[in-house]
Order: sequence, then structure tokens, then C-alpha cells
Amino acid sequence: MDRAQRCAFIIFGITGDLGARKLLPALYALHRNGRLHPETAIIGYARSDHTDGSLRAKLEKSLERFVPDFDRKSWAHLAPRIHYIRGGYADAAGFATLHNHLKGTGLESRILYTATPPEVYESIALGIVGVGLNRSEGFTRLVIEKPFGTDLESARELNRTLLQCFNEEQLYRIDHYLAKETAQNLAVLRFANTLFEPIWSNRSVDNIQITMAEPMGMEGRGEFYEQAGVIRDVFQNHLLQLVALIAMEPPSNYDATSVRNEKVKVFDAMAPLKPDRAVLGQYVASNGMPGYREEKGVAPDSRQATFAAVHFDILNWRWSGVPFFVRSGKRLEGKASQIVLQFKVPPHIPFTLDRDLKPDRLILRLVPNEGITIRFNGKVPGQGIDLDRISLNFSYGSRFNRPIPDAYETLLLDVMLGDATLFMRADEVESQWRVVMPLIDHLDLELEEPHFYSAGSLGPKAAYTMLTEQGRHWYRPWD
Amino acid sequence: MDRAQRCAFIIFGITGDLGARKLLPALYALHRNGRLHPETAIIGYARSDHTDGSLRAKLEKSLERFVPDFDRKSWAHLAPRIHYIRGGYADAAGFATLHNHLKGTGLESRILYTATPPEVYESIALGIVGVGLNRSEGFTRLVIEKPFGTDLESARELNRTLLQCFNEEQLYRIDHYLAKETAQNLAVLRFANTLFEPIWSNRSVDNIQITMAEPMGMEGRGEFYEQAGVIRDVFQNHLLQLVALIAMEPPSNYDATSVRNEKVKVFDAMAPLKPDRAVLGQYVASNGMPGYREEKGVAPDSRQATFAAVHFDILNWRWSGVPFFVRSGKRLEGKASQIVLQFKVPPHIPFTLDRDLKPDRLILRLVPNEGITIRFNGKVPGQGIDLDRISLNFSYGSRFNRPIPDAYETLLLDVMLGDATLFMRADEVESQWRVVMPLIDHLDLELEEPHFYSAGSLGPKAAYTMLTEQGRHWYRPWD
Repeated sequence: MDRAQRCAFIIFGITGDLGARKLLPALYALHRNGRLHPETAIIGYARSDHTDGSLRAKLEKSLERFVPDFDRKSWAHLAPRIHYIRGGYADAAGFATLHNHLKGTGLESRILYTATPPEVYESIALGIVGVGLNRSEGFTRLVIEKPFGTDLESARELNRTLLQCFNEEQLYRIDHYLAKETAQNLAVLRFANTLFEPIWSNRSVDNIQITMAEPMGMEGRGEFYEQAGVIRDVFQNHLLQLVALIAMEPPSNYDATSVRNEKVKVFDAMAPLKPDRAVLGQYVASNGMPGYREEKGVAPDSRQATFAAVHFDILNWRWSGVPFFVRSGKRLEGKASQIVLQFKVPPHIPFTLDRDLKPDRLILRLVPNEGITIRFNGKVPGQGIDLDRISLNFSYGSRFNRPIPDAYETLLLDVMLGDATLFMRADEVESQWRVVMPLIDHLDLELEEPHFYSAGSLGPKAAYTMLTEQGRHWYRPWD
Repeated sequence: MDRAQRCAFIIFGITGDLGARKLLPALYALHRNGRLHPETAIIGYARSDHTDGSLRAKLEKSLERFVPDFDRKSWAHLAPRIHYIRGGYADAAGFATLHNHLKGTGLESRILYTATPPEVYESIALGIVGVGLNRSEGFTRLVIEKPFGTDLESARELNRTLLQCFNEEQLYRIDHYLAKETAQNLAVLRFANTLFEPIWSNRSVDNIQITMAEPMGMEGRGEFYEQAGVIRDVFQNHLLQLVALIAMEPPSNYDATSVRNEKVKVFDAMAPLKPDRAVLGQYVASNGMPGYREEKGVAPDSRQATFAAVHFDILNWRWSGVPFFVRSGKRLEGKASQIVLQFKVPPHIPFTLDRDLKPDRLILRLVPNEGITIRFNGKVPGQGIDLDRISLNFSYGSRFNRPIPDAYETLLLDVMLGDATLFMRADEVESQWRVVMPLIDHLDLELEEPHFYSAGSLGPKAAYTMLTEQGRHWYRPWD
């Protein structure tokens, strides 16, 4: 097992929600599993009034809450290595204090993590460079949380600033979905087996469906969501990443350069989106649940999309002719993230059948019950040839008797190992923005009302007719 | 559901084991399930001294024994339609009595079933023709039990005689393995789905392994087995049929002509067997079990093969370069019939792995626990890329909440429907004999001792080295 490199781990905005819920639990887990270098220093930086002691006490409290089997003894070894520095994100004095503190640790390598609102990413980068924090005998790596920009222009601008301060190799842009086991498993499924690659193209596949359904509404995040909407929230990042993982060509090496080259090729091969290839929806009150416009922080005449179903085309030799249908929404009937490869029906059926033949499907479940299902046609026992569906199932949880590490655990370890495979490169994030910009521009024009759908439903009808018009159907993720 | 055609069903040798264990239970089940035409007459013919009454009593007794949920009430409707005619198999008077009896029933269609020793098949066929039993307004179908001949020459001779008396369309040559659900399911798996056909060739498959392992020894059948041996007993028929079902091209129709054309093409494409492509074995005493030569009815210096592992090559565009390894034996470690398609390993692996990559496998289980398993490589949850085996499983029994009909139930119904798809055609059975003749000739020459193996083992070592010499391995059917 690889162990993280020796370094200081600086978290800007350590007092925030991300630090409490994700970063400290991940660092604690790595420490407990012996993956953290024993001399690692964790340095929190934020504007609040804290001492080392009060920060440690605060973090201990949140660990107790968010780590199921929190072990005080193990924590007692980690806590003393946590320090706090108070400073603003545009405050040269604060960065100087941080710099001096780092000198005192004797740690020449450092990871700088922006667990802050995105508005201060650039000022943090400039602050770091301002005091020469990026110059050291060891490595300096900057981790940028999502969202990375709010559109193509702002993402370009952020990249421009970051790349004035750092080399691309020093930058780790987070999309935490990428560390999900199934996303990684997908690479293994495709490239460590020979069963699937021969059927992984337009010769065998009829269409590909990616669904990320969410039963929750705004849960207090209405103000944020009004700015983001479903396209920025999940399409530009998670969903396009899933498309890329499914569609990419086999890389020669599963390393940061090769994998990201292949993913960028997918985005660049995408046909420009046209609004008539997308259905944008918004939920209205139903089943006792408020409509989007009734949510706190949302304009009462908002046209923001809380649902989208998009038909992507990838114009290359492998995928031309295979629509990628991608949908996601809030307040849908159930919770599910899954990828369905729907295969063509046989070119010819030698049997006389009473019913229409259903197509074979390969279903990659991310949430819930991570795993793989293959559905195809089998013979019903008995005389004559009568067909019914057969499912071959595999569930990660029941196969492997070990917990799936949280995505952040994997990501923080990778940063400390210098492996950027699961992080987004500058050209990659810009390509993703480029793909979704037609939808964002369309929404910004507010030309038309969104397609309304009842809270707790399957989304707007138009998302269904988009497929039925081409003789295709969404696969119900709850089947 | 199809119902059998109206006919008389004549069983030659009704008093024998096959009648009691298989034919009557199958006819009873068809009757009970409403698949038998209500006017069907069942006429037993044999040499023993019986009346209608004593035959019915005898059959009732065996049905009670062999039918788990035997229902006396249902039987009360079937029993009166069973009649007995005493006669010899070369006895013109007996056949004349049968003919007269049939006239009395008013049934113009008839099925004649040879549940007798194979020696009398020809005389039955001649007896039928002698009294003109094959001429009627309805159909006449002759069912020939296995074994069909003892070598190519005797099979040809039997075909010649049968075809002097009947048209090929009237002949139903049994290989009861063909009606097994999985064999039929195999056709559905391949031809009603698109997942498998693209990987069903030498482009993806490394080798194919068919195993039929039997823990039992002779169980009193030593005398028969001395004549048959493993090649005649299971290779010439069952195992070659399985090879054909796996290897055949998709037929345009799943009917008797198309399917059998395709199977014959497979046999005719087989490279002539060389003795060095086969390992012939014989079990010796071990673990308290007697050796073959100690079995009753077996010569103490017998060189008969109770085990064979054979490397078949199919010289056509699809399969050239893919060895078909087929093995079967008595007194092996466990009971299993299964087909394994072992796929090639990936041409290139983009990951750094600690262990050798195992090949993907598609496992078609016939016995026990009929079903399908796909084994491939998946990622072990956790940081980094570590692989382990993933199994996707499907079991017929747990998927379909209905009993799998006995093979004979399916076969008898098919005969009564006039569907010969699951029966062997003249050229087919001769092709099968042609394939195995080099092994039979080799055994007949008795040039060398068989490869001895311990009773209860995995078979002779030579069967393993046959594969390891080419860098391949048998898949353990119990894994």
C-alpha cells in the first residue's frame, strides 16, 4: 500500500463545512490506516478566531459526529499535529505568518487546499505566490475545490490566474465524483477485461443512458442553486466525467496525462449542443412538497432548471450514431445514479416469439447498491421457446467485505502521492464548460418557461417524448 | 401452449427400465399438464407375459416411485388408455396383432418408440414395414433410442435399414441431452441477444472447455461399459452435441433443417483427431472405491477408457485457432457438466498490477445448479488499483419459479408435434461417429495401457499436461 509523502497539509477555510464533513474525516482515516506520513502537519487557515486548541476541539467534535467508529486514542496522535493560523484570503500578513509557520515545521513540501468559497480561489493563489510559498525545496501542490468557474469565460480566467502562479502539474482540480469506486471500477471493467471492449461501440450499442436522480429539493441551498442550476451543478462536472469514462478510448497508461488526454478527446468530439436536444425542467409543488419557486432563496418567477435531459452526440469512429442520453434532477421519484448501455436487438431472430424482444442491457449502478447488472433474454423453462429476462447481478458491498473509502480519502491520498489522474486538467475543465455553454446561454436568455414537473415524479414529460420520438425509452433506474 | 397431435403412442419394450423411469413419467406429466391429446392411446409391446391390467398395475407402481407428486386421480384417466400387446421383435404375428389393434383404435397417426436394446432396432423397423404399419392416412414416426450404432459402419448400416423403411422426416433419433434446458437456453443466449455473439469467436475466445464429470463408477453397468467406453458413451453423442451448439453459426430459423445443417457443418469442419490430441484414462482403486478392472462385468486386463480428454479443432473462419478441450470420466472428484468459454487476456493493460491478470470466463452450468456465471476482473474497493475476481451469477432454479421439465417430457411432446429439431439426423449421427472413430480405432488396437487415475481424483495427469504444454489450464468445475 502506498503511503503519502511527507508534507504539510494546509487547508484554507478549515472552519467550514467541507473541512468538518469531508477533509478532516478523510485525513483522520488516512492517519488511522497508516497511510499518512507520521510527520505530516495539518495547518488550518481561516478568518475566524481560533487557537490550536479550540480548532482541535472543534474538529474533534465534528469527527465524533461524522466518523462512525471514531477512535479517541488514534485522534490523540493526530490532534497535536494540527495548528491554526488566522488570516484573510487577501491578507498578505496572514500568508506571511503561514509561510513562517511552515519554515518552523521543517517540512519542505506542502499541499494547499482551497476549502473556501470559489470567489477567493484566485486571491489565495496570488497570496501564496506573494509570499513565495510556492518556492521550496520540496513540492507545492494547490488543490482547487469545485465549482471551477461559473461558465467557460470565468473558468478560463481562473485557469489563467492559477497558471500564472503555478505549473499545471501543481494543480489538482477536484471533482469528487471521479474518486467514486464505480468510476474507477469502470476503467478496470473496460481495460482489464476482454468481455466488454468488443461490444463497447456503435456496432453493438444502441444508446447510452446516464441518470442521476435526487429526491431531495433545496434543503436550504436555494440561493446557491439559483446561481448554479442543474447544468452547472452536475452536468458540467460529474455527468460529463461519466460520459467521458464510458466513451473514452483505452489509454496506453492509466496515468494523469494519458487518461486526461483521452477524456479531453471525448469532450472535443462532442457535437455542439442545440437547445432542441435538451429538455430543461423545474419542479412544482406536489405530494406535500414545495415547488422550486417556493424554496427559500429562490425567485418566485425563477426559470432556473432543476432538471435536464440532454442528448449528447460524440462524433468519432466508435460512437457516431449512438446517442448519450443524460438526465438529472432534483425532487425526482427516487435516488439513483446509474449508467445503462442499451445494446441493439439482434439483427435476426431465428425463433418464433409471442412478444417483442427486449434489448440487452449492461447497467452500472453507482447509487444505491453499487454494482453491475447484465440483463438479457433467456429461455423460460419448459417446452417450446418462450423468453423472459435474465439478470446477472453483482453488488460491490456483498462481494467485498471491506468498506468503500470515502471519495475524499482517495483524493487526498492521491494529492499526497502526486497522482493527478482523478483530478481535472485545465483544458479538460474548459472543454467541459464549452460543451454545456449552449444550455447555460439558453437558460440565461430566459426565453421560455422551463418544462414543469411535479415534485416526486419522473421529471417532465418532454424528457420522455425526446426519446420516444426516436423510438427509444428511458430505462427506469428503480427497475 | 402447444398440445400434442392425436395419435397412438406405441412403446416397444415397455416393460424395461426406460419405460418405467422415463417414458411413462413423461407421458403422465404431459397428460397431467393437458399437453397430451385426450384421445391418445398408449400401447405397450414386449415379450413378457402381461395383460392390460397387469401392465397398468406395474406402471402405476413405477410412477408412484419415480413421480414425486403422483396423482392417482389424474392417473385414473390415463390408465384405461394403456394397452398391452405381447410379441417378439422379429415376430411377424406380434406386429400383425399390433396392426389390428391399432385399426381398432381408429387412430391413424402413430408414434413407434424403440425402448429396447439397440440390437433389435432394425428388426423392429422391418417388422413395422412388414405388416404395413408405416402406411396410414396419418403420420408414422419412429423414435430410435440411443445408442445409434457402435461405430461409423454400424451407424451407417442402421441408417441404411431405417431409410429403406422410412423417410428421414419420419425418424427421430434420441440424444436426451439435447432437450436439457441449458442446451436450449444456449441457443436463446446466443441468438436472442446481442451481448454474446460479438465475442463468440477466435477474435475474443482463447479456448473452450467442456467438462462432464461423474463421481459414480459402473453401478452394475460394467458389462455394457466394457463395450461402450467413455467415447461411445458420452463423446460421440452428448459432448459433440454440446460442441456443436457452442460452435455453430446462427441458423436462419431454429427449425430441424436449419439447426441440423449448422451442426453437421461443425462436425464436418473438425480436424481429424489424432491420438496425441487425446488422453484416454481408466480409474484404479482408491479411497475405498474399486478400480474399473475390479468392477463386475469388466475384464481384469481391460484397456477400455473410462476417461477421455480430447482436443478438438474446428477449422473454420470463426473457430480456427481456438482449441475445444472436452473431457469426461467416471469416478471423478465431483459431479458437474459445464461449458467454459475462456476469453483472451487484454492485449494491453494500462494499470500496474501486482498479480497476473486472469482471463474472463463465461461459464454455462448444466449440472449442478443450472445457470450462467460470468467471471471477470474488478477493482477491489480502496485506494489504488488492485484487482480481484467478480462473478455475475444466474441460476435457473432461483430465477424461474417453475420446475424444469424432464428432457423426455420435452422430447416426447416434440415427437407428437412433429418437431425434429432436438433429434439427430442421419448425416449428423454419422458425422459424429466419423469424428470419434480415430479414438475408437486407437482403443480397439489396444496398443498401450490407458492413463491410470485414482478413483475420486481429477483424472489422469496427462490430461493436465496436455493443456499446460500449450500454456493453458483446465478450469476446475467445482470452483
